[in-house]
Amino acid sequence: MANLKRIYMFSDDVESLEKQLAAEGRQLKWLLGGKGANLAIMTSIGLPVPPGFTVTTDTCVEFMKLGNKFPEGLEEEILEAMKKLEEETGKKFGDPDNPLLVSVRSGARESMPGMMDTVLNLGMNDEVAEGMVKLTGDARFVYDAYRRLIMMFGDVVMGVERSVFEECFNKVKQKEGVSEDTEVSVEGLKETVELEKQAYKEHVGKEFPSAPREQLMEAVRAVFESWNNDRAIAYRELNKIPHDWGTAVNVQTMVFGNMGDDSGTGVAFTRDPATGEKRIFGDYLPNAQGEDVVAGIRTPMDIAELERIAPEVYKQFVEICHKLEQHYHDMQDMEFTVERGKLWMLQTRNGKRTAAAAVKIAVDMHDEGLVDKAGAVKLVPPEQLDQLLHPQFDASQKPAPVATGVAASPGAAAGQVVFTAAKAVQWAQEGKRVVLVRHETSPEDIRGMAAAQGILTQFGGKTSHAAVVGRQMGKPCVVGCSAIEIDYEALKFEVNGNVVKEGDYISIDGTTGEVMLGDVALADSEIIAVQKGTLDPSEAPLYEYYARIMQWADEIRKLGVRTNADTPEDSALALALGAEGIGLTRTEHMFFGEERIRTFQKMILSESTEEREAAAAELLPFQRNDFYGILKAMDGKPVIIRLLDPPLHEFLPKTPEEQAIVGEMVGKSQQEIADIVDGLHELNPMLGHRGCRLGVTFPEIYKMQVRAIFQAACQLKKEGFNPIPEVMIPLVALVEELQICKDYTLEVAAEVMEAEGVQIEYMIGTMIELPRACVVADQIGAIADFFSFGTNDLTQTVFGFSRDDVEGKFIPAYITKRILPVSPFESIDVAGVGALLRMGVEKGRAANPKLEIGICGEHGGEPHSVRFCHDVGLDYVSCSPLRVPIARLAAAQAQIDNPR
Amino acid sequence: MANLKRIYMFSDDVESLEKQLAAEGRQLKWLLGGKGANLAIMTSIGLPVPPGFTVTTDTCVEFMKLGNKFPEGLEEEILEAMKKLEEETGKKFGDPDNPLLVSVRSGARESMPGMMDTVLNLGMNDEVAEGMVKLTGDARFVYDAYRRLIMMFGDVVMGVERSVFEECFNKVKQKEGVSEDTEVSVEGLKETVELEKQAYKEHVGKEFPSAPREQLMEAVRAVFESWNNDRAIAYRELNKIPHDWGTAVNVQTMVFGNMGDDSGTGVAFTRDPATGEKRIFGDYLPNAQGEDVVAGIRTPMDIAELERIAPEVYKQFVEICHKLEQHYHDMQDMEFTVERGKLWMLQTRNGKRTAAAAVKIAVDMHDEGLVDKAGAVKLVPPEQLDQLLHPQFDASQKPAPVATGVAASPGAAAGQVVFTAAKAVQWAQEGKRVVLVRHETSPEDIRGMAAAQGILTQFGGKTSHAAVVGRQMGKPCVVGCSAIEIDYEALKFEVNGNVVKEGDYISIDGTTGEVMLGDVALADSEIIAVQKGTLDPSEAPLYEYYARIMQWADEIRKLGVRTNADTPEDSALALALGAEGIGLTRTEHMFFGEERIRTFQKMILSESTEEREAAAAELLPFQRNDFYGILKAMDGKPVIIRLLDPPLHEFLPKTPEEQAIVGEMVGKSQQEIADIVDGLHELNPMLGHRGCRLGVTFPEIYKMQVRAIFQAACQLKKEGFNPIPEVMIPLVALVEELQICKDYTLEVAAEVMEAEGVQIEYMIGTMIELPRACVVADQIGAIADFFSFGTNDLTQTVFGFSRDDVEGKFIPAYITKRILPVSPFESIDVAGVGALLRMGVEKGRAANPKLEIGICGEHGGEPHSVRFCHDVGLDYVSCSPLRVPIARLAAAQAQIDNPR
Repeated sequence: MANLKRIYMFSDDVESLEKQLAAEGRQLKWLLGGKGANLAIMTSIGLPVPPGFTVTTDTCVEFMKLGNKFPEGLEEEILEAMKKLEEETGKKFGDPDNPLLVSVRSGARESMPGMMDTVLNLGMNDEVAEGMVKLTGDARFVYDAYRRLIMMFGDVVMGVERSVFEECFNKVKQKEGVSEDTEVSVEGLKETVELEKQAYKEHVGKEFPSAPREQLMEAVRAVFESWNNDRAIAYRELNKIPHDWGTAVNVQTMVFGNMGDDSGTGVAFTRDPATGEKRIFGDYLPNAQGEDVVAGIRTPMDIAELERIAPEVYKQFVEICHKLEQHYHDMQDMEFTVERGKLWMLQTRNGKRTAAAAVKIAVDMHDEGLVDKAGAVKLVPPEQLDQLLHPQFDASQKPAPVATGVAASPGAAAGQVVFTAAKAVQWAQEGKRVVLVRHETSPEDIRGMAAAQGILTQFGGKTSHAAVVGRQMGKPCVVGCSAIEIDYEALKFEVNGNVVKEGDYISIDGTTGEVMLGDVALADSEIIAVQKGTLDPSEAPLYEYYARIMQWADEIRKLGVRTNADTPEDSALALALGAEGIGLTRTEHMFFGEERIRTFQKMILSESTEEREAAAAELLPFQRNDFYGILKAMDGKPVIIRLLDPPLHEFLPKTPEEQAIVGEMVGKSQQEIADIVDGLHELNPMLGHRGCRLGVTFPEIYKMQVRAIFQAACQLKKEGFNPIPEVMIPLVALVEELQICKDYTLEVAAEVMEAEGVQIEYMIGTMIELPRACVVADQIGAIADFFSFGTNDLTQTVFGFSRDDVEGKFIPAYITKRILPVSPFESIDVAGVGALLRMGVEKGRAANPKLEIGICGEHGGEPHSVRFCHDVGLDYVSCSPLRVPIARLAAAQAQIDNPR
Repeated sequence: MANLKRIYMFSDDVESLEKQLAAEGRQLKWLLGGKGANLAIMTSIGLPVPPGFTVTTDTCVEFMKLGNKFPEGLEEEILEAMKKLEEETGKKFGDPDNPLLVSVRSGARESMPGMMDTVLNLGMNDEVAEGMVKLTGDARFVYDAYRRLIMMFGDVVMGVERSVFEECFNKVKQKEGVSEDTEVSVEGLKETVELEKQAYKEHVGKEFPSAPREQLMEAVRAVFESWNNDRAIAYRELNKIPHDWGTAVNVQTMVFGNMGDDSGTGVAFTRDPATGEKRIFGDYLPNAQGEDVVAGIRTPMDIAELERIAPEVYKQFVEICHKLEQHYHDMQDMEFTVERGKLWMLQTRNGKRTAAAAVKIAVDMHDEGLVDKAGAVKLVPPEQLDQLLHPQFDASQKPAPVATGVAASPGAAAGQVVFTAAKAVQWAQEGKRVVLVRHETSPEDIRGMAAAQGILTQFGGKTSHAAVVGRQMGKPCVVGCSAIEIDYEALKFEVNGNVVKEGDYISIDGTTGEVMLGDVALADSEIIAVQKGTLDPSEAPLYEYYARIMQWADEIRKLGVRTNADTPEDSALALALGAEGIGLTRTEHMFFGEERIRTFQKMILSESTEEREAAAAELLPFQRNDFYGILKAMDGKPVIIRLLDPPLHEFLPKTPEEQAIVGEMVGKSQQEIADIVDGLHELNPMLGHRGCRLGVTFPEIYKMQVRAIFQAACQLKKEGFNPIPEVMIPLVALVEELQICKDYTLEVAAEVMEAEGVQIEYMIGTMIELPRACVVADQIGAIADFFSFGTNDLTQTVFGFSRDDVEGKFIPAYITKRILPVSPFESIDVAGVGALLRMGVEKGRAANPKLEIGICGEHGGEPHSVRFCHDVGLDYVSCSPLRVPIARLAAAQAQIDNPR
């Protein structure tokens, strides 16, 4: 950080500064903020930018560290910069004869539109106003600018309600009997200024500062402080922007779009941000200040009109757009002002756009030679792809929502309301589309959830059971919709005065959280329809762009992408979406089928190894069939099958009725079953008798599963397929656990292959999901073929956070209080969980250089986490099918930024 | 390991070998086993030891690694050693004219009495027997030896039930109409040999091997294999001996104590192992083999009698005892045989002793100049001190005994009678106190003995199995109580007219041998009574020895020892026992008082910060009083007070009745309270909303606690005391959590001190009990004054083990399956938890060199863990009051072995 100044003029040598920063691993906009950096760059490439300077973000950080005080010397440095500005403009701050007016605007490292504050027209006072009237001959303009200054300064710097000042203006308007701002007389504007000054004094307790220097310093202070206003904090939380970046402050010569009809102001994009079409897109408002466009007080005209009313200016603007895209290699979002026929660029930044626009622009820019493949790949935010993949409502048919809950799993679903998983399964089998509506869901509901189009719950947050499973299944899911009141007995729910009964249609939008009455039509997204083969690519204009981007991403990335899938259908979809194998097949869901759950319960309730083996043998054909389907779907690609993970009590009946049925089956009373269930109850099931602990204590279950895997694989091999099963032992803390399970897996595998006369290529590995496993990863790695980091459970144990208990409860409070930047269950906690993961990778590889390492927690589909996985050198990530393209793209971007 | 041989003669140069091993960090007995090493040493210092050799433990490990096969070349090496033995003895193995007979015995690195196998008289066959009769003229002796060989070989080597061979002998006795072994005729003995050979062939399926070489090799193999028999495994688990050490095998020339009245065999200690008194203590059995003493078939005479019947031998033995203590600097447990007037030493080892004996012997040996202070400190096993600290019968309430047996292992025990080890284990798991009553115990009973409060046997003497194991475990034990008559089938015993059934209470005093009916109340031990000031040291002879040892320990150790105490009483006791401060005061127990729990519940149920603050204010005086008492008791010593840790729902009522009462208090219905309780319910409370998470979300609670701490401290300061409170924030995962809690702690502390006009010396620190805290200990250490490792919770999260759920359930299975050597909640898991702890220490100290670091988990009082804490450089350990002396001693021993 040596030799950095607190203030840079836009006209300073920005290239040198950029190089100096790059040497420290920083970017220009980290120091100058996005806006400041771009103003400086625009200046450097010769665009017409009103002169100005930037106080750096580092200075804001200093300011905050001092408890919101100016660092020593800053004021002098600002005055110094003002002097340079006066030289550049030939005007003088506070000089009535040749006054310099400036704006003060925030500008953070990442754009936070409208979240922070701006003050315009600084440098104005009674004398300057009079002088300006002399200079411009436009008293209306001058006093309008003056009244705006007092209002903005009172509002932004002093925290007086804006309405207080608006009231002053309204009074004058009333008095003059006019309604439009522009109809107010010059005298009226002057009176407004006086009224505003009085109001200012009344609310602030002192006079409006007429000294330009005081105005300026206070405005800078206000912008620094605005970094921590509530809106800004909320925005950063939503957008995962660190709270400690701080904002830069840009002080810039005012230019005025409201100096007559040859003036105006506009906002424009170099391309259409909704569709990506290559045309200048935006609004222009003649005779107006920029804030009028943003405020929406007057309706702007389409920017195309500018060509008509000021063809020269438009031509210059088109050239500037071209120049900017040439410089930034990205679509730009610009603000500009025309002052008496002269075009001034006030801002440019990379424009936000829809996913559809993002892929089209990326591909077009590639084809135009603006970016290479890597550049195009970088132009699409991975997270945004989600929009292109989930089913969507047909916008033309979507009614107003009756309620809104938490958008937990994106996509659209419509169907008939059912209140039980059993009914969901039954109706689905009858060919009905159903939406499962529950207070909340539990593992027993899984088959019902799978059968439903979507899930709506009254309680629970983004990581409730319904939400997690919903995302995993790719099922649209709205949770925590407290406006609905379910009456299970009456088989109905009420929502804002509407009664919805079982069988009635509702529609839910998991992307927005909206709940609508009726059967709103929906469709596969274009991309999915093409991938499924139900839509011809020629009818999906978007598809080509998407496909080309994804192909380039695949060419670039080094990190593999697999999927988490439990059924042949999911596997097939994931494959179509580019999955290179399965990173996690959970086997527990497979036990919940009606025929199976009873047998499985019988096995759990067995009192001897023999009984357990007999029950396991009954389950074998079902499991074999499960694995057959998945291995076949993934023909020739690796399939990691995780052996049973959850504690056994999850499979036992909780209600007396169910207990009675199960009791009868195994020759026990309901009470005896209840006692067994009680006995198996765990205080902390997350840390209980599950995972490989079951494999060690009840090897019959795992042995059955291994047998089923290898029987299925052998059968496929005989049928000419190439199954590649990889057996994964969960929850290993001690190498001895893996050794025991590995030993009998090898034994059973050999036995099956011998009996079938077939050789199968396979691996045996383990999930690394406990801190101890990371610490002794050298021991474990020495006997494992692969590691798969289970970052869900690892996050739980590293933090001591029970996801079910804390995510809805105090994690939101932690984020608000800035204890956590984001939920560690959403994006991997690099400092804690990440450090242990890294240790696991290093120790594992040191002990076994051939160790294959991946991740199968939900983080595997989250772009920041994918980047971390790339950086740390994993072989692959694994995520739910619909996130596979996201992971592919994120992996490519990681490789571009940090080649390995 | 270069240049080590597989076999060493007793007469080899043992000093060189010892030096060679020391250079590799190994001890002689690690290679030769305890017995082998001692035989070699005794030989080297000129004691009369029958010549022999040792096959090393390394060879046993080789054997096991090869799947229980002899390594290549071993057989030849054994034959080579036999040749040397023949040269040393002038006899020849298998030569009828001058036969060499040998014994084969196990001998592990640590003594495992009776756990492994022995075969005597190898080298005998029909021809040798005839030859020996010619040589000795004693056919009875020869054929008795022969029959014993077949029996032992069949039993130990071939696994045939011993009773099969006993039956043969019984048949002959019946035929001859005699009852004593010694009454059987020579012909009868010969016939027994023949019958045994037939029985052998019948059960083994082949002839008894007459070739001495085959006998020898098979016996060596059997001893190697005996390392992994069930008894040995159980013993090692109980005694925390690693399973991979292996045993050595000692092959030694036979000497015979059964060659007439000038022969005999004995077992003796150089000092009294029960009291520590300096006198030779033991048993001698004339005209008998060693196994007869152990088996208890004949009642031995006191060793003192030997002086009368063989004064020369006795005198020589006394000299040997002296020589051995001079060499080993420890009390010795010896086996010897007198063969026709010649004394042969068969074994010596450091003798097991009671805690009382241990402290006396250590102090005596110091005073005798045999050991220095460090040597004396090392002579007392820390864990054993427990015996001196645990309660004894309250003399005033002790009824007259119904019987008296041999006082075999001191201490008082009362509990319900059980007659099987299995029942003892089962009832103990159900929380019952049990006394195990048996005819005599055997190695299979070890788990039951460990589970019982005490052990009572009908048969056996001071060196019987029950006595030896009881002393070692510190279990009160009365043996040979012939007044009781046990009826295993009827599950009862009779004693002097009383019938005691299973489940009835009895009390036994292992210090006096008394057996009492009923559940006799216990009182403080001598040491505790002196420490508490309720007994004058002059009435506690043991106290002086204890106090001197502890003083020496304190002089030596570098590791501090604090206590975990929640009351002034516990604090005072701990102080008396040597605690240097409090390492953990839990504050949650303080809320369970009748008056407090209601107010606390009111606080939890508060709906606003104001309500919560009001309820907190009501609790303040109670808490202040709590802290006042503890800080006063620990005047001038640091007191770490942990702020509230458990989740709030633990304090809420679970039953409808209680809920109704609480509801009335806060103006809510029972149902509303029940709903709130349900709402607060956590699936995994261990990983839930607790610890500093409460301090962050409900700061009112912690603030009240901090206020109470500082008000109490200020009051004490004004009263002339010197309180040193240290505020501990629990369950920190993120440095920001600590920062928030620290900030308001500083604020409240300053406010209270300001108001009271008093300055208090204090610290603010944190528990490190989550893996993440270890990983980011540099961040946390930078703002903490101290760390205290909470190894209980750390073990839970590092392993993903919920102690409540797994410790009783699968951890025992894990220990049996050798997945875990010992419960990680008992002794710290060095590889996993320990590695993270070390990381925490290193990172914390790197960020803050003044950081004070301790441990307050239960491991703080466990000697192995204390040693680890010393090695890793902690400042102190903290443990429950009664374990403070144990920790002091363990810390001193750690310093002796690894000075820092």
